[in-house]
Amino acid sequence: MIKPQILKGFRDFLPQEARKRQYVIDKFKSVFESFGFEPLETPVLEYEETLTGKYGEEGDQLMYRFEDNGKRRVAMRYDQTVPLSRVVAQYQNELPIPFKRYQIQQVWRADKPQKGRYREFVQCDIDTVGINSSVADAEIITTAAKSLEALGFKNFTILINDRRVFSELIENGSVSKEEMDYAVVAVDKLKKIGEDGVIVELVTKGISEKRAEEIFQLIQTQEKTDTLQDISNYLENILSLKGKIKFDPTLARGLSYYTGAIFETEVDEYPVGSICSGGRYDNLIGMFAGKQIPAVGISFGFDRTIEAMDALGLFPADLAVSVTKVLVTIFSEDLKEQSLETANKLREEGINTEVYLGEIKEKNPLEKQLKYADQKKIPYVIILGPEEAEKNIVTIKSLQTREQKQKSLDEVINILRANKVSREVK
Amino acid sequence: MIKPQILKGFRDFLPQEARKRQYVIDKFKSVFESFGFEPLETPVLEYEETLTGKYGEEGDQLMYRFEDNGKRRVAMRYDQTVPLSRVVAQYQNELPIPFKRYQIQQVWRADKPQKGRYREFVQCDIDTVGINSSVADAEIITTAAKSLEALGFKNFTILINDRRVFSELIENGSVSKEEMDYAVVAVDKLKKIGEDGVIVELVTKGISEKRAEEIFQLIQTQEKTDTLQDISNYLENILSLKGKIKFDPTLARGLSYYTGAIFETEVDEYPVGSICSGGRYDNLIGMFAGKQIPAVGISFGFDRTIEAMDALGLFPADLAVSVTKVLVTIFSEDLKEQSLETANKLREEGINTEVYLGEIKEKNPLEKQLKYADQKKIPYVIILGPEEAEKNIVTIKSLQTREQKQKSLDEVINILRANKVSREVK
Repeated sequence: MIKPQILKGFRDFLPQEARKRQYVIDKFKSVFESFGFEPLETPVLEYEETLTGKYGEEGDQLMYRFEDNGKRRVAMRYDQTVPLSRVVAQYQNELPIPFKRYQIQQVWRADKPQKGRYREFVQCDIDTVGINSSVADAEIITTAAKSLEALGFKNFTILINDRRVFSELIENGSVSKEEMDYAVVAVDKLKKIGEDGVIVELVTKGISEKRAEEIFQLIQTQEKTDTLQDISNYLENILSLKGKIKFDPTLARGLSYYTGAIFETEVDEYPVGSICSGGRYDNLIGMFAGKQIPAVGISFGFDRTIEAMDALGLFPADLAVSVTKVLVTIFSEDLKEQSLETANKLREEGINTEVYLGEIKEKNPLEKQLKYADQKKIPYVIILGPEEAEKNIVTIKSLQTREQKQKSLDEVINILRANKVSREVK
Repeated sequence: MIKPQILKGFRDFLPQEARKRQYVIDKFKSVFESFGFEPLETPVLEYEETLTGKYGEEGDQLMYRFEDNGKRRVAMRYDQTVPLSRVVAQYQNELPIPFKRYQIQQVWRADKPQKGRYREFVQCDIDTVGINSSVADAEIITTAAKSLEALGFKNFTILINDRRVFSELIENGSVSKEEMDYAVVAVDKLKKIGEDGVIVELVTKGISEKRAEEIFQLIQTQEKTDTLQDISNYLENILSLKGKIKFDPTLARGLSYYTGAIFETEVDEYPVGSICSGGRYDNLIGMFAGKQIPAVGISFGFDRTIEAMDALGLFPADLAVSVTKVLVTIFSEDLKEQSLETANKLREEGINTEVYLGEIKEKNPLEKQLKYADQKKIPYVIILGPEEAEKNIVTIKSLQTREQKQKSLDEVINILRANKVSREVK
């Protein structure tokens, strides 16, 4: 016997969890498409050289990489931005400009597994490629905000900054390049380690405490760039986003490929960090295309989104019951045919219906069937016994209220519809 | 510069192709769920020993396997039946019996890439676990058939056989175990190599031509088992499947883990082999569970399904146009605000809408915008120039007919609805 086990940091999603994931993905897609973002899929495996060197030293270490049967060095998808960049360069003559795409696929990182951090996880990304304008930046943020609203989040804050806030200080000679490199890394952890932590980190890099405080002060008092002013103006014009946009000169973002506006979104009632974040990266695609192609995008942390929705009770109640809305029981071998037909009719009306597949006991035939429906949280059971067959009716029983009624099948269909258990039949 | 390239046997799916894939997956899910199958997701990586030895020698050779950073031997998903078996064994105390699940994920096989054969591809599976009955077998076949119907296939044939047709001949002493092992492998290729090919293959194994013909004859004239009779009776009762079920004693199926009924479905107008196939495997889960847990399932070849749909023109026409239904153009910087508001209103009405993100030229501002809409196959364009702004109307232009009308925004929404370009707003 082989022990049934799973790798650390990897997860199975049993039906109820899988359905919640599907619910979130469907909402994302619907909003992404409403803004004209189109789906893209890229392979799990890429040539190693496509991915390495794009995510810093840590990225190369955490990447799943190996030699395939044909002795090619390959790597598993680590994020969706680098594959997008490869795609844009590869198909640049076929793609419309701007190319607006969404991508919802898994990525792999051999990180230390811990609460909320996995080795296999889903990212939900939108990116607009080929346009360098603050309207494109603002549209990305709007789409992200509308996605959060569609999932039921009400109070969230969109933090914005511009990478050029940092480069400005180097250019005007206030901070040296070396000091700034350390400062960006330290400031990126501000929310976790606090101002004192940032100063301590800079001191360990050989910067005096006084100078460290000075640098932090210089960053903290930087002003909005013109781009950020444009983005703010655009977003403040959207009714539901009014007052939710905050300029934060200490927002740094870890990834080194950002070149302009950067953003993060935090859910106020679930302050565990950013739910989605992104920014403008005008040089990354050039690494594959040989010429500059500007881009801006945002990525949702799928697991954190689901955790926050769980914590705030944002999932609709019907996700907690079975995908099956009705179990048609089988009373006896004679009446099986009629039960099967009833099930078919319900399915044709868009009602997800199971028939009981187990053995039918002669004594107390329904006992096990009702137990199965209860265990699977199927909301309704239909009983078709000799009495019902004779009268050409069925008994419908709600497993929630335990109430039962005898009705014609058409009436039952109406009841089920009124209780919203039917899918749209197309 | 890094050359933008992709591994052989792997594919990018640009938006139009990705949308077709999503369309098929949505149809599958809808039918699967209508029969009460629930979604399951398993990881891409499993412990190597979970997967090896389940697919024969060839399977072990074609599997993507490597040592991860933690020196664990891991393997990439090769099919979905073995991971399902591992899941059932691992969570057997939590899962309802029967456990009916669907799974639509990618699998990887380092096979020689050729037309229609890829190294990364999607499988769409349904399985019913925990019940050994011909009703469960028949329900699996019915669900598969209803899926084909939902995709638009009209003429297809369901071939059924029973692995016991072969074991019967061994048990009654007509054919030796060794002869049968060769015969099953050879007969599995019958459609490709013909009867003569089967005989030749048996002869190369050291069986005399006369004996080979005798064995083939014995197999070909076997009769339906009781299980197959039950399955046929059940299926023939379903109106749309009447006459589509054929018993084929030479149907063999490659995988060694089948123990009972086996089936394949062929599309009559697109005879390139089986679109979906499966069978009963009552011993596989026991390898993980330490006790017998019966199961039956079927798997759709996703790529072949899409190829057949393409060949038969089964994809709806609107998949060929953009996900965006309307491009709201921007006439000038002054009128931008109004265009953005118009776009927001259309989105709120469930109409996928883009605003033009590129630079607005003073001379001929719409030229580039219309070109973008044409390139992306966006069906409608809305123009909001100074005249429209003053009259509080918009101009709507169909890019297909090149016809344009001036209307109020509400009227435009009605036109778009009548032309079915809106999503259901929930």
